[in-house]
Amino acid sequence: MKNKLGKQTLQFPLLPRIVGSYSIVGEKEGKGPMAKWFDMVLEEDTYGEKTWEKAESKMLKQAMLQALQKSGREKENIDTVLSGDLINQIMSSSFMARDLSIPFLGLYGACSTMTESMILGALMIDGEYASNILVGASSHYCTAERQFRMPLEHGNQRPPSAQWTATAAGAMVLSATDKGDAAVKQGKKQQHGQEMKEVYLSHATVGKIIDTGIKDVNQMGAAMVPAAVDTILRHLSDTGRGPDFYDLILTGDLGLIGKDIALDLLSGRGVDLTAIYNDCGAMLYDKKQDTHSGGSGCGCSASIFCGYVYDEMRLGKINNALLISTGALLSTISSQQGESIPGIAHAVAVTTKGVI
Amino acid sequence: MKNKLGKQTLQFPLLPRIVGSYSIVGEKEGKGPMAKWFDMVLEEDTYGEKTWEKAESKMLKQAMLQALQKSGREKENIDTVLSGDLINQIMSSSFMARDLSIPFLGLYGACSTMTESMILGALMIDGEYASNILVGASSHYCTAERQFRMPLEHGNQRPPSAQWTATAAGAMVLSATDKGDAAVKQGKKQQHGQEMKEVYLSHATVGKIIDTGIKDVNQMGAAMVPAAVDTILRHLSDTGRGPDFYDLILTGDLGLIGKDIALDLLSGRGVDLTAIYNDCGAMLYDKKQDTHSGGSGCGCSASIFCGYVYDEMRLGKINNALLISTGALLSTISSQQGESIPGIAHAVAVTTKGVI
Repeated sequence: MKNKLGKQTLQFPLLPRIVGSYSIVGEKEGKGPMAKWFDMVLEEDTYGEKTWEKAESKMLKQAMLQALQKSGREKENIDTVLSGDLINQIMSSSFMARDLSIPFLGLYGACSTMTESMILGALMIDGEYASNILVGASSHYCTAERQFRMPLEHGNQRPPSAQWTATAAGAMVLSATDKGDAAVKQGKKQQHGQEMKEVYLSHATVGKIIDTGIKDVNQMGAAMVPAAVDTILRHLSDTGRGPDFYDLILTGDLGLIGKDIALDLLSGRGVDLTAIYNDCGAMLYDKKQDTHSGGSGCGCSASIFCGYVYDEMRLGKINNALLISTGALLSTISSQQGESIPGIAHAVAVTTKGVI
Repeated sequence: MKNKLGKQTLQFPLLPRIVGSYSIVGEKEGKGPMAKWFDMVLEEDTYGEKTWEKAESKMLKQAMLQALQKSGREKENIDTVLSGDLINQIMSSSFMARDLSIPFLGLYGACSTMTESMILGALMIDGEYASNILVGASSHYCTAERQFRMPLEHGNQRPPSAQWTATAAGAMVLSATDKGDAAVKQGKKQQHGQEMKEVYLSHATVGKIIDTGIKDVNQMGAAMVPAAVDTILRHLSDTGRGPDFYDLILTGDLGLIGKDIALDLLSGRGVDLTAIYNDCGAMLYDKKQDTHSGGSGCGCSASIFCGYVYDEMRLGKINNALLISTGALLSTISSQQGESIPGIAHAVAVTTKGVI
């Protein structure tokens, strides 16, 4: 298998490019420390829709359409859209894909969905089965809260370890070529007034589910850490890279508590990531915003990657990054039936270098 | 894009093989006309578990493990497991993958999940990113009924157009080689006492969502037909094949009513499939079994493909088949919010010929 490295890592020799990217977040996220990196901040989280679910789907659709526009592609150029979200039967993604009328493959990886969509999209491009693929993911505080926890009106007390589901979506266009890349010509280049680098997907590590028996749904970060650590170690081992290869190693949404546990566990395995490690959930909100352990949700790593990471890579400030979106594969039914929380984490390596 | 044909079809020049397959069904399905083709029939649908959801997950796990055993591979040889189901947050698949401890990519395509998993699994093999992939899907009457419709205890009246969610799972091992193929050496060959053919995946057509505005959740067949017809016509157009290329064109679970509508719509487009067309939902139960319009659920096309179609292909009685699993991408929330039912259908072409 010429494109497999080690046990769980794929390599993409044709280096699929990210040729357009768009992030959109809710009001609260737009007041946080990452605000300047997002392409769009909602004025109000209903986004003009009658239900939260329709607002989330519209947000995802907007991210997809705007990423498409930035890429300089037309809808007709897109072979497949790959996407998922947290709502039962991935309602946001299904209705987004219905409206776009592009062939659709629905995914469910909980908050790991962004990297899952990037992995499968990169596979389709790199294997020469597709020219352009749209990938993305979304979450919405109000849809997730009422589906997984309590009615919003209940205003329940949240323990300090709880995370706040981000109202956010991210989408990008993966492509075999830079042909027609409007982002280079007219998009972010003009915003920043300097030369933009290309961003390529070079490797992916598909994660195993790890479940250490945690049953507390307010300890999602802790529940997902072992899977994140396993995927990071596996990625480094499979690729033969040291952590210093990367300018940034970024987990999806372990939150503030999970981030500390991850650093501890990695340190215990002899891997010190302190200088280059961060977590999207720990970055998304300011401590004053009262989100306790930070952000979560598919949209958390999606919006931070499609906003901050992608933009910094275009500017050449980050040249090699490893994104590890993390998911907690529980449901209300599995919790009610006494099950613990299965964690999963998929990694994607992105580079401006144009070599694998 | 050397591996893309027309607008929506992928081709797999390395011809990933199906080297092991297993189907498992519930009591009712085991009394239907397809009973002899299934590898295992449950004695009772709880399968020794305390909840229906755990029973479904166990059924899927059993299908995966048995397909693996038939393939002659070990768990350690499997690069990734791709799977999905109908339960919120694909609980059956997540807990199956947790127990298997194999890298996992979760999918949601409603009842189209079997072909979705086959497409993505074939991509991974054909693109040389993996050597062996486990794919599968499941559904359970008792988990689906209480999640999507009514508590079982309610015993509600079902209209004549309603379909019966199959208690069933199917799984298969896709592989780059026939090395170690135990099924050839000791499996089905001995059962039937004759030479077995190899079965290859040659093409896949990724479907678009089509929503004609149907809101009646007891008309799932009718809601999915337009997507199925669109995918079939697209597949034939992209590949340049006539319907006579296939010995069998099999839709997922349009049921008895949907099957008739599909034949009518295709006939209106000048394509007569009468001689070679069937539908898994129409095949699964006997009319006497009181399932009204027939079977549905991810497990319906999964079990019939992994049982009947695969076995008939191994025996050389079917040499070219097109499986089009069909999905209705609704949720209880989308219905409650007045949305219509988005339909989707993905096609996979399988052949014993060893050429594309």
